[in-house]
Amino acid sequence: MTSKRNFEPVSGNDLPRFAGIPSFMRLPVMSLDDSDIDQVQIGLIGVPWDGGTTNRPGARHGPRQLRDLSTMIRLKHPISHIEPFSLVNCADLGDVSVNPADVQDTLSRVTAFYEKLKTCNIIPMTAGGDHLISLPVLRGIVKNGPVGMIHFDAHTDLYKGYFGGFEYTHGTPFRRAIIEGILDPKRVVQIGIRGTMYDGEDIEWGLEQGVRIIRIEELYDRGLDDVMTEARAIVSNQPTYVSFDIDGIDPSQAPGTGTPEIGGFTTLEAQRMVRQLKGLNIIGADLVEVSPPLDQSGNTAWVGVSIIFELLCILADVIQGQKQP
Amino acid sequence: MTSKRNFEPVSGNDLPRFAGIPSFMRLPVMSLDDSDIDQVQIGLIGVPWDGGTTNRPGARHGPRQLRDLSTMIRLKHPISHIEPFSLVNCADLGDVSVNPADVQDTLSRVTAFYEKLKTCNIIPMTAGGDHLISLPVLRGIVKNGPVGMIHFDAHTDLYKGYFGGFEYTHGTPFRRAIIEGILDPKRVVQIGIRGTMYDGEDIEWGLEQGVRIIRIEELYDRGLDDVMTEARAIVSNQPTYVSFDIDGIDPSQAPGTGTPEIGGFTTLEAQRMVRQLKGLNIIGADLVEVSPPLDQSGNTAWVGVSIIFELLCILADVIQGQKQP
Amino acid sequence: MTSKRNFEPVSGNDLPRFAGIPSFMRLPVMSLDDSDIDQVQIGLIGVPWDGGTTNRPGARHGPRQLRDLSTMIRLKHPISHIEPFSLVNCADLGDVSVNPADVQDTLSRVTAFYEKLKTCNIIPMTAGGDHLISLPVLRGIVKNGPVGMIHFDAHTDLYKGYFGGFEYTHGTPFRRAIIEGILDPKRVVQIGIRGTMYDGEDIEWGLEQGVRIIRIEELYDRGLDDVMTEARAIVSNQPTYVSFDIDGIDPSQAPGTGTPEIGGFTTLEAQRMVRQLKGLNIIGADLVEVSPPLDQSGNTAWVGVSIIFELLCILADVIQGQKQP
Amino acid sequence: MTSKRNFEPVSGNDLPRFAGIPSFMRLPVMSLDDSDIDQVQIGLIGVPWDGGTTNRPGARHGPRQLRDLSTMIRLKHPISHIEPFSLVNCADLGDVSVNPADVQDTLSRVTAFYEKLKTCNIIPMTAGGDHLISLPVLRGIVKNGPVGMIHFDAHTDLYKGYFGGFEYTHGTPFRRAIIEGILDPKRVVQIGIRGTMYDGEDIEWGLEQGVRIIRIEELYDRGLDDVMTEARAIVSNQPTYVSFDIDGIDPSQAPGTGTPEIGGFTTLEAQRMVRQLKGLNIIGADLVEVSPPLDQSGNTAWVGVSIIFELLCILADVIQGQKQP
Amino acid sequence: MTSKRNFEPVSGNDLPRFAGIPSFMRLPVMSLDDSDIDQVQIGLIGVPWDGGTTNRPGARHGPRQLRDLSTMIRLKHPISHIEPFSLVNCADLGDVSVNPADVQDTLSRVTAFYEKLKTCNIIPMTAGGDHLISLPVLRGIVKNGPVGMIHFDAHTDLYKGYFGGFEYTHGTPFRRAIIEGILDPKRVVQIGIRGTMYDGEDIEWGLEQGVRIIRIEELYDRGLDDVMTEARAIVSNQPTYVSFDIDGIDPSQAPGTGTPEIGGFTTLEAQRMVRQLKGLNIIGADLVEVSPPLDQSGNTAWVGVSIIFELLCILADVIQGQKQP
Amino acid sequence: MTSKRNFEPVSGNDLPRFAGIPSFMRLPVMSLDDSDIDQVQIGLIGVPWDGGTTNRPGARHGPRQLRDLSTMIRLKHPISHIEPFSLVNCADLGDVSVNPADVQDTLSRVTAFYEKLKTCNIIPMTAGGDHLISLPVLRGIVKNGPVGMIHFDAHTDLYKGYFGGFEYTHGTPFRRAIIEGILDPKRVVQIGIRGTMYDGEDIEWGLEQGVRIIRIEELYDRGLDDVMTEARAIVSNQPTYVSFDIDGIDPSQAPGTGTPEIGGFTTLEAQRMVRQLKGLNIIGADLVEVSPPLDQSGNTAWVGVSIIFELLCILADVIQGQKQP
Repeated sequence: MTSKRNFEPVSGNDLPRFAGIPSFMRLPVMSLDDSDIDQVQIGLIGVPWDGGTTNRPGARHGPRQLRDLSTMIRLKHPISHIEPFSLVNCADLGDVSVNPADVQDTLSRVTAFYEKLKTCNIIPMTAGGDHLISLPVLRGIVKNGPVGMIHFDAHTDLYKGYFGGFEYTHGTPFRRAIIEGILDPKRVVQIGIRGTMYDGEDIEWGLEQGVRIIRIEELYDRGLDDVMTEARAIVSNQPTYVSFDIDGIDPSQAPGTGTPEIGGFTTLEAQRMVRQLKGLNIIGADLVEVSPPLDQSGNTAWVGVSIIFELLCILADVIQGQKQP
Repeated sequence: MTSKRNFEPVSGNDLPRFAGIPSFMRLPVMSLDDSDIDQVQIGLIGVPWDGGTTNRPGARHGPRQLRDLSTMIRLKHPISHIEPFSLVNCADLGDVSVNPADVQDTLSRVTAFYEKLKTCNIIPMTAGGDHLISLPVLRGIVKNGPVGMIHFDAHTDLYKGYFGGFEYTHGTPFRRAIIEGILDPKRVVQIGIRGTMYDGEDIEWGLEQGVRIIRIEELYDRGLDDVMTEARAIVSNQPTYVSFDIDGIDPSQAPGTGTPEIGGFTTLEAQRMVRQLKGLNIIGADLVEVSPPLDQSGNTAWVGVSIIFELLCILADVIQGQKQP
Repeated sequence: MTSKRNFEPVSGNDLPRFAGIPSFMRLPVMSLDDSDIDQVQIGLIGVPWDGGTTNRPGARHGPRQLRDLSTMIRLKHPISHIEPFSLVNCADLGDVSVNPADVQDTLSRVTAFYEKLKTCNIIPMTAGGDHLISLPVLRGIVKNGPVGMIHFDAHTDLYKGYFGGFEYTHGTPFRRAIIEGILDPKRVVQIGIRGTMYDGEDIEWGLEQGVRIIRIEELYDRGLDDVMTEARAIVSNQPTYVSFDIDGIDPSQAPGTGTPEIGGFTTLEAQRMVRQLKGLNIIGADLVEVSPPLDQSGNTAWVGVSIIFELLCILADVIQGQKQP
Repeated sequence: MTSKRNFEPVSGNDLPRFAGIPSFMRLPVMSLDDSDIDQVQIGLIGVPWDGGTTNRPGARHGPRQLRDLSTMIRLKHPISHIEPFSLVNCADLGDVSVNPADVQDTLSRVTAFYEKLKTCNIIPMTAGGDHLISLPVLRGIVKNGPVGMIHFDAHTDLYKGYFGGFEYTHGTPFRRAIIEGILDPKRVVQIGIRGTMYDGEDIEWGLEQGVRIIRIEELYDRGLDDVMTEARAIVSNQPTYVSFDIDGIDPSQAPGTGTPEIGGFTTLEAQRMVRQLKGLNIIGADLVEVSPPLDQSGNTAWVGVSIIFELLCILADVIQGQKQP
Repeated sequence: MTSKRNFEPVSGNDLPRFAGIPSFMRLPVMSLDDSDIDQVQIGLIGVPWDGGTTNRPGARHGPRQLRDLSTMIRLKHPISHIEPFSLVNCADLGDVSVNPADVQDTLSRVTAFYEKLKTCNIIPMTAGGDHLISLPVLRGIVKNGPVGMIHFDAHTDLYKGYFGGFEYTHGTPFRRAIIEGILDPKRVVQIGIRGTMYDGEDIEWGLEQGVRIIRIEELYDRGLDDVMTEARAIVSNQPTYVSFDIDGIDPSQAPGTGTPEIGGFTTLEAQRMVRQLKGLNIIGADLVEVSPPLDQSGNTAWVGVSIIFELLCILADVIQGQKQP
Repeated sequence: MTSKRNFEPVSGNDLPRFAGIPSFMRLPVMSLDDSDIDQVQIGLIGVPWDGGTTNRPGARHGPRQLRDLSTMIRLKHPISHIEPFSLVNCADLGDVSVNPADVQDTLSRVTAFYEKLKTCNIIPMTAGGDHLISLPVLRGIVKNGPVGMIHFDAHTDLYKGYFGGFEYTHGTPFRRAIIEGILDPKRVVQIGIRGTMYDGEDIEWGLEQGVRIIRIEELYDRGLDDVMTEARAIVSNQPTYVSFDIDGIDPSQAPGTGTPEIGGFTTLEAQRMVRQLKGLNIIGADLVEVSPPLDQSGNTAWVGVSIIFELLCILADVIQGQKQP
């Protein structure tokens, strides 16, 4: 790879970290039409959308605030010593163009973008946006049968519908994905579930399909290691997506989100769980539901990009591993 | 009217103004199905909607924050000495049920609500919600030919479309209303217009239809009195709607709104302009675009309900005048 | 009970959760004069008062913000599967009318309200207000000899006086209640106590009376289960009140309170402790010291109503159990 | 006066203005028991009280935030070129000890403090606290018959009572003072009055006593100069107090206050009106109702101390004038 | 110019205005090393620096927040109908690399950057940063004798030194520039000056050099038109720089700045004054002292970019005029 | 010591805790020139400096906000029952005069101040300011060979340089101190280290010198007790400094800091670790990096002063122990 150095973040020695136009991780900005696009291995993409939000909106502003805070991220993982930006070519591929006033139009646009990405063989690290965006992302990149998923969240997002049967909201993406055959429910693990319930139908339906739902109490009672060992076993070495809803984390650490539930896991626990994804066959990841108007301080976005960095290290390691026979 | 006292706000002597469940102006809460609904003369209604918002959402939370702050409003107008709640029967009719994820469904629901209101002969004082809601409100209450409008705003809301031709957003309601024949463009006056322009097509189209657009500079150069005299002449004594977008007011005084434009008129000027609507044939009014996530302090909502009180005094006076031969 | 369905919260399918006038949990609003009042089994009441606050005021605004956030609470408990609003008749009984400028007048008003409540056989779930309100609540509902109390808090609230001997503040209610014979100190357990001390006299006095004071360090060293087992044993199956001061929870999770102390328990620990109250003979509960001006985001109130829901499930279960022979 | 230089503020050259313990204007801190107290000519005093507040509390925190922001004030008036700290001896006399839980006790404490001040011949520049504090201040310093007052405010504070007849709140001080014979209503001018009214009884009562009430509309219609000329004529050269409620200023410029009313005068207008008090026989002044929890940014307090500096220049000039024959 | 369309902002129809990586005005990002750099006519540059700040820091974060808010700016001026991005080639040239810990090193870096810019014949529109940055900007672009300046500000920035004689702070740039011979004091006009004074030496020195200082009172007493006519006459048709300190505007409209002074001019007045610069021989402009930590809402930055757009229209018109014989 | 009572904090009974001029812990304010200075045993000092901050500034405002919040601290430690203000003479020695625009000048000023303090035999409890201030503090008080250090932080602060080799920033103090021979690296323990890395050179260098670096994961895996036992062994009974960077604590509990890293230890853990310093030979301590503009609520400062109180109890115990044979 002759041009690797072009994919390195702007150095803090050249320009202080608070300076400059904020791309994800200070990476180069490219478009899918770029002539060098085939060199990109991991694409960081924003989907600035909250049209699926049933309660408090604002996640459409997530990608921009995440980019802003991401400039404080450095180069090397403190535990694994992975340097993702040296290991593989990463680039900021900008935001997908959405239509804030039309759900179906937006779903089509997002799917089309990720289909192109798939064609380019780029692994997506997506920043939401509300959780509905995981559906068109999966539609775009899953083309050869259903995939598994490790899903960190306070909610199952397996609801049937809202507002009189409307089936496309941020509470329904994974029910749709299972029904559409792009998620294999028997290889879906949900971690951190909690909060009061409407009627529990989402959970019943999920359990019937074979989804493994791990409530927050079980997570603490068994311990992270035990739970993650099970999660790894469930998804096994088959293609697996990772979806991280920021509201999985306790709202004291991530208040900027539309549907908080008290009693979540901590950021350190989040980091340690993500680190245990190492070696799995991850085909893409997303970090969703950061809502800047609900936390103008940027603290929630800082948590978000810190998790994105953890995910990037996992993804870079996957790619690196694939190259080595 | 024997039951008039039932329509009086909870007194601050009985319950401090910060206490109690916040209905609009501490008025009784009623529904359109209520057996006493025929006694209501002015209905205060919330339309908690921001699905037409092209940029920064949050106006769906407007009605609740407006209700909260409205409990600080007292009973009597300091200049006109009108006591609207004594003069006519006012009630809080709750929020219209909207579908946050579907524009057309919501437009239908809102129109249906206002058609019922019209049947009950209740004059609506609506709290938004983004500005798109004026369209279904007008659809609901205008049944006998186009009406005039006095419109306070930073923007014309006469745009053609967004995001590739989408015609139902908070920037398009009055173009739609003119095209649908429910607004008579020759009796529409827009006051406070300013801000950078896409291409000016909205203004050109409006001028061609006969809309009178009064920019902020003209307002100051001629003075409020002169402008309002002209405005009154334009709408004359025919049925007229009043639409007040909070972003007409300078963003230093009303920061909690999605599309602020610097250089607006002041709250005192707003009060004085509304007071000059006295005696016109007003058929309803709205106050829109208060976005609580953009001003958690409630200061913008406080401006909003203070203007709503001014409008209520005008509406009460209209009704009172109609009763007297 | 023929009219049970009238006591159900407004459904999110009928009206989005951010919409509508915010009563507690979207329950019907009733007054003690209501003809149906005898059907109510649990009353949710606000006491909007902070006149007993010795440092940072604002708790008078607590009930309104708690109501606002409570509309995000759903219907069913995720662990116990209790559905309190189906199980028993709950209603929002509004705010007690207080006098912000007179302590003794307010104490009388609150006591009078709760005496009426007692007469109606309604179990109160009270939202403060500062902690002084627990005193008049207890005065109102305890009529047959002293009761026990499980008290979650950072402070003992057993102080003697402030500002030269003034004995009615939010730091003194339980000393007053013990002296007045409405609390049995030998059946009082305080959990979460911490923070710097004036001189420790409150603790010494409490210990002399037989109060069981469990500091935060003991809570963690022994574990929640062990501590709660002891607490249950202390109050036994006799009538017991539950008082939950939001400042028992760590200030990172509940910053909106007047007298925070670092190093508190977490929300999940709070939930788990409250869940262990199941089956006790609870006669009422309060959640106090949420101060909205110190957390305009509503995050603290969200914690507060989440705990109120936990308490409601316990109370509903008590009532349900009493009905069954 | 040999020790004048001891009364100079800490210089920004010696210590940056953001550094150091914040006394008012960086002046020396003294107590009434200090041996040098007789050298003090103007005392800056805080009265950290909001027990008279009928709606949103927080003004008890006013003095501290005002001190904090006051360290940005420099030495010399830009128009009059008065250097108050060189001209007369100014000192920070600390906060009066109040009892947050007892109104009458607090009134007594404040009056006692100001009586001592009067004995020391110190002119008070008081920082509130809510507006009730003006009553005990006046009680303390007015000993030889009623005085006049120039009063900047949105409200008359001439109300009869609240909450069932309670007569000591921040809405009643001047009615009490007139009734007690310490204010001469015929020499009282109120400027900036506005906002919705309960019933107007306060205004009627005031007018009957001879109070001159200048609404905001009259202020603008006639112009500042004309109004201030009248105000000066009304108080003439007899002893006059100045009371400045921060809510007289528009809430966009001074949002941190408990009872805002839209449509107020600007800070520049406030400065220009205060400058026109020059040469009057001012016996003391206060600046009240800054409520830090309602504006944590300190912007409102910055407005407050900027007005306090204007008042200090007027007071220093009075003292200077009295010394010169 | 064949490649003009490359310099157009991303359209809101292609990508909603809240989406995408925020460059200034959504313009293309280029560096001085870019091969097309000679096509750029106006460069928008950030100088993320607050090392000259004597009181409250944060202006180093200004450029990023200004870029963020600038994406809400549209294409066409509402009064002059100038479309700057169509008229001339504008680009975002990124941030100058500064050294947050060394003043002199930073001054050198900034000057070097602007010297290159000058070589490329690009007119700079600079976004600060604190006001010290105007000095190295002027050093970089003024090479043929002193220039004039129209300077909007609350402060003269003509101070001699701080903290024991330190001469390079945000209060001293224009004294340094005059002494260095890059500003002609007789062609310097300062508008909006106000606030308390240390000792007035800055003003005396400025007047001695011939600087025209127009205080806020004079601005209002004479009116904007009269003052701007004088200002235009003073700078005449010789090369003139425009420096706009956001603190010239009233702090209610621009609170996010380190040294606010109450009683400033309004945003509309600012717009109208800038519009009167049309036709002058402007060689560059800056907008400084926006401090995001002091206004996380972005409202101040929104004012800032709105003024930058006004300045861009003036600059584009200058360039356009120069091309036409 | 006859005058011990002069060193007691103002009592909350004499003046409510929200009232009065805020000195540290309401202690008397003294200067090093004071005639009673030899009676002071522990000095609380502010160093209002952020000129070494490489990213987000604001720590210069730390001392003032810490003083403000410190007035809520009471007198007695809840576990050890130490009453530091009774045990030894504590005083607020004000802020060191810094030069916000010059690093080296400031380093000299701070060192000079602490050399004087050393001469007076006063043990310093310093409140920052950014972490660079620990360097001049150590330079001032370490005169007899290198000392040990227990260092709580998210970062090692052992970096080599920034911005092209600049060696004096808040990321470099302890490398400088080791190189200068005032810290003995073999007796330095760092606890809580985490966050992404530039390249890990700081850690490698530290390990080579013999610094013991305990990452957050090790802290949790081994438990606090085990780690603190090791830390005590490493510093042994030789002179040891304690440096507490607030960013060691999780950012959800201490958000007001310039370089947060997710996944930190809790406040209760911080308290328990500091309590285990009892009996060590502590020669001084600091608490740094509280940045008020990043947390206007004061919550972070409240955490800071709560830790300062813990440290004061340790320091008072050291002094007390030295007096007793």
